[in-house]
Amino acid sequence: MKPILWTSTRTSGTIVHQMAAASGLDLDIRFISLRKGEHRTPDYLAINPKGEVAAIQLPDAGVTITEIPAMALWLAEAAPQSGLLPADPIGRAKGMEWLAWCHFRLANTFSLAFQAKRLVGGDEAAAAALRATAVTRAREALAFADAQLAKQASGTLLGTARVSAPDIFLAALLGFAGFLGVATDDLPHLRALGAKVAAVPAIAAALAREQEIG
Amino acid sequence: MKPILWTSTRTSGTIVHQMAAASGLDLDIRFISLRKGEHRTPDYLAINPKGEVAAIQLPDAGVTITEIPAMALWLAEAAPQSGLLPADPIGRAKGMEWLAWCHFRLANTFSLAFQAKRLVGGDEAAAAALRATAVTRAREALAFADAQLAKQASGTLLGTARVSAPDIFLAALLGFAGFLGVATDDLPHLRALGAKVAAVPAIAAALAREQEIG
Ligand SMILES: N[C@@H](CCC(=O)N[C@@H](CS)C(=O)NCC(=O)O)C(=O)O
Ligand SMILES: N[C@@H](CCC(=O)N[C@@H](CS)C(=O)NCC(=O)O)C(=O)O
Repeated sequence: MKPILWTSTRTSGTIVHQMAAASGLDLDIRFISLRKGEHRTPDYLAINPKGEVAAIQLPDAGVTITEIPAMALWLAEAAPQSGLLPADPIGRAKGMEWLAWCHFRLANTFSLAFQAKRLVGGDEAAAAALRATAVTRAREALAFADAQLAKQASGTLLGTARVSAPDIFLAALLGFAGFLGVATDDLPHLRALGAKVAAVPAIAAALAREQEIG
Repeated sequence: MKPILWTSTRTSGTIVHQMAAASGLDLDIRFISLRKGEHRTPDYLAINPKGEVAAIQLPDAGVTITEIPAMALWLAEAAPQSGLLPADPIGRAKGMEWLAWCHFRLANTFSLAFQAKRLVGGDEAAAAALRATAVTRAREALAFADAQLAKQASGTLLGTARVSAPDIFLAALLGFAGFLGVATDDLPHLRALGAKVAAVPAIAAALAREQEIG
């Protein structure tokens, strides 16, 4: 049986969907609705006990892989020609560094801003303060990434000609920044990376499919 | 030249120090003081532009690796006999899943609690609310890990006889939970894992050295 990617539009699952598309692997891609609670059904919890998307289910091995950096690693190893991660140990570790950095920032800046009110128990003023800190940190994180990108003639994080898994993750964070109202006009290297990722045909197709689903 | 591990006691750097010890690799371990601002010197920023610990500097390659999951991956590949990560692709991906999960939880529960006041702009009541949410989430995360550990006869996350990098990371989160006052008495599998990790001779020696430094 084909590996199954469980995901949901307008969530962090889009990041894994794009990586899966860029891998060129033949996966069964299944969209579930968080609004309808489809991630909380007994069937889904048996596949992913975290009740989250994304998840890559490997039916033949009886294993499910979750967490974006781990799904990226699995996809990169299953599709070594895809360029999702470099093949040499130092290049792979640098690639994982960026994946883990994006993941950590997703948790402590973007998720913080999106969940501000819930995190402070509903108080509106406190939520606004928390959101402001998160937005400042998101901005600092993206400025750091822009400065690092500026050092690569390739315009990609790892100096590769092709877009890698960390490039896809970082471009998605740039998209989330738009939702938060974080200014990024003055981060040209990052914006160029965003355009480069969106122009990869397989990724463009994946994003178009998500638009269609809505 | 030997790889250099830059770290600092009583920080997340201790996690990498323990992984490095368990790797059996011959690293040059250098402790810097965050209180004295040694992570903000031009010399250190040239090595790690993030100004954070831990970092593994590879002088011969002219490369520095940061972010715990990436340092774990590099150590595991440099020391394949160490058991820090399994050798097969699915086992490695599962190992990375746990590393990334611990890292994400470090960001969105433990760091949140430790930085609560700064995150909400100094308001004491809001900080208390945020800290309470973070503590609840830390507790939920550790209970999830305990339930997953319960399924492994080995008592380790990946079902391995030896302690792996994810086991070391999770045991450290259990230690941080102690600082936060999160109750863990009723999480026996997790507590047994903590004891198992602390009993690995190389790890015990690394922790003793950190105690000495203070
Ligand atoms: N650390 C996870 C984050 C996954 C996650 O938080 N997914 C969200 C959507 S962005 C989810 O499924 N939430 C469902 C819920 O919280 O009930 C990863 O790397 O995939
Ligand atoms: N995501 C990083 C976190 C590193 C980090 O936050 N290190 C802290 C110590 S726990 C630090 O160096 N802080 C210095 C500072 O914030 O000025 C990792 O995985 O290593």
